[in-house]
Amino acid sequence: MYQDLYERLAAYSDTDYYPFHMPGHKRASLPFCNPYKIDITEIDGFDNLHHAEDLLMEAQKRLANLYQSRQSFYLVNGSTCGILSAAGAAAKRGDSVIIARNCHKAAYNAVKIFGLKTDYIYPEFMQCGIQGQIRPDELERLFNKRKNIRFVMITSPTYDGIVSDIEKIADIVHAHHAYLIVDEAHGAHFSLSSYFPESAVSRGADIVIQSLHKTLPSFTQTAVLHVASDRMDVSKVQEMLGIFQTSSPSYLLMAGIDLCVKMIVQSGKELFDTYHQRLASFYKKCEGLKHLHVLTRKDYHAYRVFDTDQSKIVISTLGTAMNGKQLYDCLLNRYHLQTEMYSAWYVLAMTSMMDTQEGFERLANALWEIEEELGRNQNLLSGETCTELFLKRVYAPREKVLEISDTGYYNIEETLLEESSGRICAEYIYLYPPGIPIIVPGEMISDQFLCILGECRGMGLNLQGMKDQMIRKILTITYKQ
Amino acid sequence: MYQDLYERLAAYSDTDYYPFHMPGHKRASLPFCNPYKIDITEIDGFDNLHHAEDLLMEAQKRLANLYQSRQSFYLVNGSTCGILSAAGAAAKRGDSVIIARNCHKAAYNAVKIFGLKTDYIYPEFMQCGIQGQIRPDELERLFNKRKNIRFVMITSPTYDGIVSDIEKIADIVHAHHAYLIVDEAHGAHFSLSSYFPESAVSRGADIVIQSLHKTLPSFTQTAVLHVASDRMDVSKVQEMLGIFQTSSPSYLLMAGIDLCVKMIVQSGKELFDTYHQRLASFYKKCEGLKHLHVLTRKDYHAYRVFDTDQSKIVISTLGTAMNGKQLYDCLLNRYHLQTEMYSAWYVLAMTSMMDTQEGFERLANALWEIEEELGRNQNLLSGETCTELFLKRVYAPREKVLEISDTGYYNIEETLLEESSGRICAEYIYLYPPGIPIIVPGEMISDQFLCILGECRGMGLNLQGMKDQMIRKILTITYKQ
Repeated sequence: MYQDLYERLAAYSDTDYYPFHMPGHKRASLPFCNPYKIDITEIDGFDNLHHAEDLLMEAQKRLANLYQSRQSFYLVNGSTCGILSAAGAAAKRGDSVIIARNCHKAAYNAVKIFGLKTDYIYPEFMQCGIQGQIRPDELERLFNKRKNIRFVMITSPTYDGIVSDIEKIADIVHAHHAYLIVDEAHGAHFSLSSYFPESAVSRGADIVIQSLHKTLPSFTQTAVLHVASDRMDVSKVQEMLGIFQTSSPSYLLMAGIDLCVKMIVQSGKELFDTYHQRLASFYKKCEGLKHLHVLTRKDYHAYRVFDTDQSKIVISTLGTAMNGKQLYDCLLNRYHLQTEMYSAWYVLAMTSMMDTQEGFERLANALWEIEEELGRNQNLLSGETCTELFLKRVYAPREKVLEISDTGYYNIEETLLEESSGRICAEYIYLYPPGIPIIVPGEMISDQFLCILGECRGMGLNLQGMKDQMIRKILTITYKQ
Repeated sequence: MYQDLYERLAAYSDTDYYPFHMPGHKRASLPFCNPYKIDITEIDGFDNLHHAEDLLMEAQKRLANLYQSRQSFYLVNGSTCGILSAAGAAAKRGDSVIIARNCHKAAYNAVKIFGLKTDYIYPEFMQCGIQGQIRPDELERLFNKRKNIRFVMITSPTYDGIVSDIEKIADIVHAHHAYLIVDEAHGAHFSLSSYFPESAVSRGADIVIQSLHKTLPSFTQTAVLHVASDRMDVSKVQEMLGIFQTSSPSYLLMAGIDLCVKMIVQSGKELFDTYHQRLASFYKKCEGLKHLHVLTRKDYHAYRVFDTDQSKIVISTLGTAMNGKQLYDCLLNRYHLQTEMYSAWYVLAMTSMMDTQEGFERLANALWEIEEELGRNQNLLSGETCTELFLKRVYAPREKVLEISDTGYYNIEETLLEESSGRICAEYIYLYPPGIPIIVPGEMISDQFLCILGECRGMGLNLQGMKDQMIRKILTITYKQ
């Protein structure tokens, strides 16, 4: 007798593991009936998401109203399909675009399937070991280098909560007659409370994609796409959504989106106020930490970051002998606190309006206990420090030889890593999380790249994307077919 | 105060409307907890659908085992993403392919985004007014006309339950070194009981896509993709699924798939046996109908159809004054029987193993009552008959001037219908349901086409796809950019 997925999930929900991770409903028992009872299809009276003209049109209007967008769409295939649709609506095959290098993989996939020519804009790197904002002046520089850019796509906030100056960026993008697409997957709570930054919807972006499930009480896989400006042809966006979303969208997921919007319209003020108090109290409790360090707005200010999303709690282990993975494991195994992710030098705890006072206290108390141990054990304080420099080398720009979409026309082969320098890479390699590629298909494999790849392995970082999971061989391009 | 989508759905579930439509769980109260409680993300211990190596790999193995496929994949974005992925895995940009003209819109979208050159194979038309099978000899003829076809995609069973001879078709396709992709969205129950036809998985197809939600007890939007042969490169399929499925797949939907597989493994025999008895008894009860007519295997046999799926109950109004829409409305409004769809001359009731004896009886009794009225009222028997000929004209092959994917490079304009003859169409127009296009972008608008379009309007059929919903103007291609 096997234990099926449902049983595993149900058993887990009865444990004391606390979710400092997505989805934003935090597994709270929000009222919902037996899901089979209301899981229907496009029968009479229940409209059709792909030709919404009745209750799904009304529901999407409520959504647009909440975010003050021009027109908003439900996504039942996550922000993934929103990013593909936005790219397909904004550009035609062969167009040139600018993509922030720390974009989600969906952006690279969009580039591939729509055959776009890409320039990358790299985020700043901060001494605290996380990727920073997209600088408007850097974007301006890129625009002056390339003509006829059709769109710019950036991620703001990032996974870690770094917010770029969308207003300035939008001005530059529009001055060059391009569209601005903002992957705001991690910022669905923006603009809904003064405690968080304003959404790109109201800061000049043309299309904004948000994962409701990431930071709001909505089911996993639910997201929204906002057409925020008059520049964008809405019918093109609809055409693309018709391609990348199932023709049988789930009424469960859609009902979940509408319930989420309703909750915020009806009780958002109280929920966000309480949330704000809990967050503020948590940050205050962690102020005195000397070894571990919870990054605050003040820290980011010192790094000249435009703005940050305080809902993401970044706990740095820099300067201690603990690395991110060790802290993550300790929080998970000793304290039953499941955080969202770790990198080499920090742990990320994601929070939402559904987090409880008890949850925040458990996390603060755990950090203080770990802190004391770090203080008692001097050995633990002499560890290596990973800095901005390492990060800069990991994410150093690579030489582009072929467009991603053109690599599909070539044959590929497996090459031993030690023999691959000077060849063209044919696969993505990224550190997971956060899943930002350190090389993409069509880029040159250099000695420097191989060197940093070795370092990442040595540090036990989680390298993903390579076909050879033992990381001995790399896919390279051979000859033209 | 608005009534949100959830409230509308919950209120509907408390009515006596009976679902002769998707999803296949028929809104039965299968055991399931509060969905928020188990809606998680890829945390420790719960694997990652896009790199399944633990419990999601095991779950997908159980699925593959059930259908005896080489490897099977969960789809959380419906069969839509399965069709896109299959096409992208089997062909490269610019390849030539053969698509059955009665394929789902996703097949056309695949052709568009992957820039494929298409020939269409048209299904047979039957006197009973529904589209028939794909004939192997017709396919052979097409292969002899075109070289280097990369794949053939057909739909079997159709929405109405028509099954083509996959074995013969596969032999032809493979003799010409192409792949066979079968959209078996409506046949997830195939091979699971001897009462239904064998799945294309075991009849020689290379990739088979099934919508679990359509005919089995699984949530809307859940589907599966089977790689059924050794010819297909599984890693290419996986790459495509990584593009067209959200990177945040819903554990609710996935748990629902696993529960569905478990139910069939553990109780499939009894459930299918009972279902079989109920269906057989229903068909027997309807044998004596003289005005309305429930199509049986015997009828289809007379039309030389290869095989049929008896789970789809097709109720013909041919020869009565009632049209499909009137019967549909009557069943819905007077008997609270919500059927799946209507066409001009029939109504389709979809059934599954979750249908109740009471449901079947309600439908049979309703048909007999309507039958009596038709018998009493001679006027009702003198109505027009829509035949094979009309259908043949509606779905007549149109002259292809441009590939669908090439139409994106041209400017388009709105043209008055009466001035559009001789121009190239720039949009899809289809009758909904079933949503099969009667013209696609790149095809020539002829006088014959405009004539049949007018007839469809005159008959009150539901024409969809045109930007101008008043059907006065049609999008046409102007000049090259």
